[in-house]
Amino acid sequence: MKILLVGASGTIGSNVYDLLNKNHEIVHAGRNGADVQVDITDEASIRAMYEQTGNVDAVINASGSAGFAPITELTPEKNETAINSKMKGQINLVLFGLPYMNDGGSFTLTSGVMMDDPIPQGSSAAMANGAIRSFVKSAAIEVPRGIRINSVSPSLLQESSERIGHLFAGFDPVPGGKVALAYQKSVEGAQTGQSYEVY
Amino acid sequence: MKILLVGASGTIGSNVYDLLNKNHEIVHAGRNGADVQVDITDEASIRAMYEQTGNVDAVINASGSAGFAPITELTPEKNETAINSKMKGQINLVLFGLPYMNDGGSFTLTSGVMMDDPIPQGSSAAMANGAIRSFVKSAAIEVPRGIRINSVSPSLLQESSERIGHLFAGFDPVPGGKVALAYQKSVEGAQTGQSYEVY
Repeated sequence: MKILLVGASGTIGSNVYDLLNKNHEIVHAGRNGADVQVDITDEASIRAMYEQTGNVDAVINASGSAGFAPITELTPEKNETAINSKMKGQINLVLFGLPYMNDGGSFTLTSGVMMDDPIPQGSSAAMANGAIRSFVKSAAIEVPRGIRINSVSPSLLQESSERIGHLFAGFDPVPGGKVALAYQKSVEGAQTGQSYEVY
Repeated sequence: MKILLVGASGTIGSNVYDLLNKNHEIVHAGRNGADVQVDITDEASIRAMYEQTGNVDAVINASGSAGFAPITELTPEKNETAINSKMKGQINLVLFGLPYMNDGGSFTLTSGVMMDDPIPQGSSAAMANGAIRSFVKSAAIEVPRGIRINSVSPSLLQESSERIGHLFAGFDPVPGGKVALAYQKSVEGAQTGQSYEVY
């Protein structure tokens, strides 16, 4: 398959790349150092990316950010990071990518554990994650031509726990390689509308 | 209690009003014909509303809209209705309302069944609904002074089924009075972080 992987340089993306690169052609899109440049917060940039890649058999998004703030300090402005990146960025990858998706292809988006197991300062991220899970479940019943769509919700990653583990008290970190399996299941399997929760 | 009810003129709002008006002082906010004017898509309007109402013991939102479109025709522009109204509108009611909320008060937002039981053309609404459920779950662990926050997810209402029931094939409509009970539970009960799903 020809797989467009958005955000291959992060912990999740690099694990997905290592797992799927063995049997597939991976086109890496990202902000820097990628085969194709893309900023998912910019609609024109997403459209330009698809014009460059042409048709694909799968799109995996492993990028997207969210702002962190205590609920009493969260402002509409701080909330926009998650809205523009993790939420609208991912949804627009689907909306603009549909015409470029081959029959029977798949989209795999990324949510995150904070929607189910909340942490302090995580309300904006939880919002975006919950939005992605429900969007995917709904879009799955409508996407045409046998196209599928799923999302993966990773817990705290082992590889990230030294850097951000203090924010996730009592979480049992999961290895990136285990999270990557959920993306493989989404791409190579036959399910749709799923939220693969790797907790 | 002094309860600020945003959107008392709709089916849900009027049922909530009828139930809670017996034992509480209800301040009705809405776009037209309300005690206080408010447009929840406008940050300045929300701020002005709270300046008018002053402190309250509960905020219930029964307003908010979303655009409907097949996934192949959904555009970022059409998606903005749900983002600005149902999602950001409700979240901003919380963010701007926290300073006006009395100790031990509560926020009750509204999501909807389409996040769990999707229908054609409902992806944008599902997105906003899922965002609200997860935001509420996360915000609940952080809101100060014993303040609580829940959301209610109504199914298709009996009162709406003649008008929009054709979009909800096979759904068993629920009476507005039953949905109103969930708002009462949120306001008069002691739970927080809940999604009351009235399906």
